[in-house]
Amino acid sequence: MKSYTEYLTMNVPKQMDFVIITPQVEAALKKSRIQEGILLCNAMHITASVFINDNERGLHHDFGVWLEQLAPFNASPEHYHHNRTGEDNADAHLKRQVMGREVVVAITGGRLDFGPWEQIFYGEFDGRRRKRVLVKIIGE
Amino acid sequence: MKSYTEYLTMNVPKQMDFVIITPQVEAALKKSRIQEGILLCNAMHITASVFINDNERGLHHDFGVWLEQLAPFNASPEHYHHNRTGEDNADAHLKRQVMGREVVVAITGGRLDFGPWEQIFYGEFDGRRRKRVLVKIIGE
Amino acid sequence: MKSYTEYLTMNVPKQMDFVIITPQVEAALKKSRIQEGILLCNAMHITASVFINDNERGLHHDFGVWLEQLAPFNASPEHYHHNRTGEDNADAHLKRQVMGREVVVAITGGRLDFGPWEQIFYGEFDGRRRKRVLVKIIGE
Repeated sequence: MKSYTEYLTMNVPKQMDFVIITPQVEAALKKSRIQEGILLCNAMHITASVFINDNERGLHHDFGVWLEQLAPFNASPEHYHHNRTGEDNADAHLKRQVMGREVVVAITGGRLDFGPWEQIFYGEFDGRRRKRVLVKIIGE
Repeated sequence: MKSYTEYLTMNVPKQMDFVIITPQVEAALKKSRIQEGILLCNAMHITASVFINDNERGLHHDFGVWLEQLAPFNASPEHYHHNRTGEDNADAHLKRQVMGREVVVAITGGRLDFGPWEQIFYGEFDGRRRKRVLVKIIGE
Repeated sequence: MKSYTEYLTMNVPKQMDFVIITPQVEAALKKSRIQEGILLCNAMHITASVFINDNERGLHHDFGVWLEQLAPFNASPEHYHHNRTGEDNADAHLKRQVMGREVVVAITGGRLDFGPWEQIFYGEFDGRRRKRVLVKIIGE
């Protein structure tokens, strides 16, 4: 069994945004030389997500509006107890739960075994700081 | 390390529905002859989910009502920007995020290592078309 | 390829609560002697979650309030059809979908390859009964 580990660095200038990372993940897979196996890609921070969906700007706009409805930003420590710690990002922890922490992707014939529209995204919910994404590949 | 890949084909006649696929996944596991390892099962389309929950019709009704509240269907391109592409399925992309893309299941002694009520479902949110589910198994 | 399987037993006295399980998962990893690979940790019950987020009590309070808004408890079989089975826990099945069933964690150099704040939690949504969590590790 082979394994390969890579860390991507993310610097998202907005509070909330969605960034395609399929090319970086594919580059890591190529370096790993793994032909058959499993690839894990996860946010290493708890106010960010890695997820698979459509590479379409209108949809990303819709994600933002929808997540703000489901888990609105509110800096008040009366509204979110987490913000009593001095943070103001409780909503980002909730948004990340909706969108998920990680994806696991099959590697078949040396490629990400994807359907026609699958793309990997980094979802940032508390940006303007450096964060990391992990790529781990195991197989042969 | 052994690996095994299978693609299931789904044809759901309704817009939204939940279909049990545990038997097909178990059949793939049997064909793989893998005794110890990990099984990945994921929707290959971005308006569908694979998830684990209860095989109970009333609950599936509740899932449908609840998802329609959280992420209502609305064909208008004013409501969802994604629908400015000519699609009308923005809600299906959101519903899929709530229910998830994939499950990862432990294989122990040649079986899906499940609790008493765990069953695997395909969740369709934009049906009436052919879609695929991937099963990837790695182990020994 | 090595594999290791362990089952944790959970007994949560409240209806809904969040319990840190990182120490038990790390102990399982140590016993496995696996240095490079993948770790799966999942709830074996369909009204519970395993997820990764912040070890902060205020945030756990916020999770509880938020999940109750998204998927309120309601014992009535008029409100949730699942409760026509004699159960009253339909809401717990929905809450579990928001928080997820499982996490997959990279193992690098014999350790959980975590960012600075990542901790593993068991999320209980229908407590006061014995439940199990599975830890499966594969690698070398």
